[in-house]
Amino acid sequence: MEKYNGLNYTMLCDFYELTMGNGYFESGVKDTVTYFDLFFRTVPDQGGFAIAAGLEQAVDYIQNLHFSDEDIAYLRGKGIFSEGFLEYLKGFKFTGDIWAVPEGTPVFPREPIITVRAPAIQAQLLETFLLLTINHQSLIATKANRVVRAADGRTVLEFGSRRAQGADAAILGARAAYIGGCGGTACALTDQIYGVPAAGTMAHAWVQMFPSELDAFRAYCKIYPGNAVLLVDTYDTLRRGVPDAIQAFNEVLKPLGITKCGIRLDSGDLAYLTRQARKMLDDAGWTGCTITCSNSLDEHLIRELLRQGACIDSFGVGERLITSRTSPVFDGVYKLVAVEKDGEVVPKIKVSENVGKITNPHYKRIYRFYGRESGMAEADYIAVYDEAVDDSRDLVIRDPDATWKQKTMTNFRARELQVPIFKGGELVYKLPTLPEIQAYCKSEVATLWPEVLRFDYPHNYYVDLSDRLLGIKNDMLRAAHS
Amino acid sequence: MEKYNGLNYTMLCDFYELTMGNGYFESGVKDTVTYFDLFFRTVPDQGGFAIAAGLEQAVDYIQNLHFSDEDIAYLRGKGIFSEGFLEYLKGFKFTGDIWAVPEGTPVFPREPIITVRAPAIQAQLLETFLLLTINHQSLIATKANRVVRAADGRTVLEFGSRRAQGADAAILGARAAYIGGCGGTACALTDQIYGVPAAGTMAHAWVQMFPSELDAFRAYCKIYPGNAVLLVDTYDTLRRGVPDAIQAFNEVLKPLGITKCGIRLDSGDLAYLTRQARKMLDDAGWTGCTITCSNSLDEHLIRELLRQGACIDSFGVGERLITSRTSPVFDGVYKLVAVEKDGEVVPKIKVSENVGKITNPHYKRIYRFYGRESGMAEADYIAVYDEAVDDSRDLVIRDPDATWKQKTMTNFRARELQVPIFKGGELVYKLPTLPEIQAYCKSEVATLWPEVLRFDYPHNYYVDLSDRLLGIKNDMLRAAHS
Repeated sequence: MEKYNGLNYTMLCDFYELTMGNGYFESGVKDTVTYFDLFFRTVPDQGGFAIAAGLEQAVDYIQNLHFSDEDIAYLRGKGIFSEGFLEYLKGFKFTGDIWAVPEGTPVFPREPIITVRAPAIQAQLLETFLLLTINHQSLIATKANRVVRAADGRTVLEFGSRRAQGADAAILGARAAYIGGCGGTACALTDQIYGVPAAGTMAHAWVQMFPSELDAFRAYCKIYPGNAVLLVDTYDTLRRGVPDAIQAFNEVLKPLGITKCGIRLDSGDLAYLTRQARKMLDDAGWTGCTITCSNSLDEHLIRELLRQGACIDSFGVGERLITSRTSPVFDGVYKLVAVEKDGEVVPKIKVSENVGKITNPHYKRIYRFYGRESGMAEADYIAVYDEAVDDSRDLVIRDPDATWKQKTMTNFRARELQVPIFKGGELVYKLPTLPEIQAYCKSEVATLWPEVLRFDYPHNYYVDLSDRLLGIKNDMLRAAHS
Repeated sequence: MEKYNGLNYTMLCDFYELTMGNGYFESGVKDTVTYFDLFFRTVPDQGGFAIAAGLEQAVDYIQNLHFSDEDIAYLRGKGIFSEGFLEYLKGFKFTGDIWAVPEGTPVFPREPIITVRAPAIQAQLLETFLLLTINHQSLIATKANRVVRAADGRTVLEFGSRRAQGADAAILGARAAYIGGCGGTACALTDQIYGVPAAGTMAHAWVQMFPSELDAFRAYCKIYPGNAVLLVDTYDTLRRGVPDAIQAFNEVLKPLGITKCGIRLDSGDLAYLTRQARKMLDDAGWTGCTITCSNSLDEHLIRELLRQGACIDSFGVGERLITSRTSPVFDGVYKLVAVEKDGEVVPKIKVSENVGKITNPHYKRIYRFYGRESGMAEADYIAVYDEAVDDSRDLVIRDPDATWKQKTMTNFRARELQVPIFKGGELVYKLPTLPEIQAYCKSEVATLWPEVLRFDYPHNYYVDLSDRLLGIKNDMLRAAHS
């Protein structure tokens, strides 16, 4: 939709991208070719993996990058940017290369989801928006995937627009939730823009608008006989709501020969109420009536309800999905890892008092190794950009922290995880459709062993550095501390 | 800025607003005048109060409400909406009345932040977006106010764009953070659109781009002698970063007679490192050098650092503010509270298995009572719309749950909290400027007693119902359960 694409988010950057940009310009390093990695450090909810998402919006952003006259005037008003730099910004355009892990890919800490190669000012400017889109959508796709796995084959619908952190969080959060496996959303605009199926029937206000609950249900069944999902908890779920629903179904749907209908519960003890409601519906002959539940659900509550024998066909999941409530931050960062000097790629590192903040230097490639017999993902492997990985021969990989922990990969297939997105500023990637991304996500999650999938204390999946890369990193750390 | 105002968010609604709208249309109740209250149930972070925010975006939204031909075509494609309804939507325009609590007001659970009076379809359609904007910005303004109070007079800057849940969360989150008391933001676009002062100097990449940290610092001081805030933790804060900063200040700033500069720390033990850094700076004569800290700060860590004697002049607060990480949901709801029938206002109630989900019925007014001598806020009072509150006489107020708890208000001033925003679809409210909102918020927070302000186990501020309103509510509850 025209009205939501093409927004110019060029100025949606941390102010320091601009002060640094001007500084690079003034210091004569503006044309230095730099490499930046976007990676994250910890999996939300202490899970075993995350789902990468948000790349399509990164592509939109890069294609729309430009400074308007208004932007230049704003910057000039700050009184700290040189006219030369402002002139440079007027003609600004992204001319670099970008590689990225496709949306829907399971990803692990410390491996680059995106790598940018571009002149310093350009690469620097992208930092804020790339992080914002990848952090946000990966967060929600990851949470959605957890919720969907908890629902164990039942439908999960995204219902959280009203509690989302702003309009984009609602619209793009619903998009990301679909990537993670949700079957649809309550958000009409996300359906209209992205084709994520929108669903919804009534709120309590509908019931309150009529003289009685039964009148409200009858009226709804008459208008929407093909999709009569009645909200039964406005007054008293079991004493009034479910009996009123059954009566409306009997009066309106039965004569039409319709057996497909539904009820929704939004409060109370869902384990108890759904079992009772199921029995009442079945006893009345409405075995084709589905039960949808909402009310502060998340993966943990869904698992617990199912374990307790709740009779639920689909879940509407709101605030705890759209904000990833139990873990609302995806901690992606964007770090300089190399520069080109005299045609050579020179690795760069950031040291830190916090060991977790030390970066993996260099321009790199990431591979995922799948067992040829099992088809399962066995390890990821990060190598220097010009290292060949030959999956026709055995390969010893080792833990980057505990280097005595090693494993010999045999009979495996190596797949490079990043694909080219931009080359010399031109888009070279065909963006997949959203259903394609959802299907890819599902099939890739299916390659993860149960030990990585579990919610509690998942196994740390191997993400190893090549011996050469590890050697370079250790040399740089020693040099920095000497 | 044109490019961010005027977006048409009409379709940013839950799909059920549309199915209900069509249903109201088909059931002949579309012209029934309804009253909806927007209120919240719990204060984030178990705090004593929240800060209302997001009204300006609600006003923008309502002024832009309309269905485009594209929207109508999308809806027609669903095959469930009547042509009569679609025709009605083509000419759709908001014609109702809206009252709201001004942005920046401290608010308490269960009191209406917004009240809408409009024909059923119109009032229903507003639900999702009104909730979204109020929930999001009130959440962030509330969190920002906590962080700012923890900083105890020191500057707090909003640094969270990269971890925000989408672009709006970054831009409008920074706006809300400013309302709550932040001094500025890192987000350039929020400065450009809303005038929230943007600040920022360098990331680690700047330091890595030069042959040495000292070279990077020298270059920065030369380009920005008036605002040289150097990030000192790229390699080793105390052994290299601070000494390099001092040397750069000595070489570049001292000859210019500049004494104002700064350093920033983004990792490590900030209590220890800032005390040491402060001593090193002071010993070198750089007493005018400020120390800014960032790194996963929130109100609790800031309090603890200050208690431990950290030497910090300003705080950059990122992910934990922009997502309200410890409490990322503001639980506002939008409920039908009355309808007009034959010129009478008829109260409506929603009962629930969850007692907390029972609504306060009726078209109401809210008052805040301030002690005339203390100037402090003593209680809020919710009355039926046509009840007069006379603050020249004593008034007995009582707890709506424990009605035996009563208090006699004497020598008080009553202020009505909601003000008219729209009248017959026309904006009748002059939107205050952002600095005005920030100043109003600060002065209103200053009217709250310490027992309401404290972070741990704050006192429950009185929000009482008038005897008449309580009587109506109890009668309705009894009727619903008989």
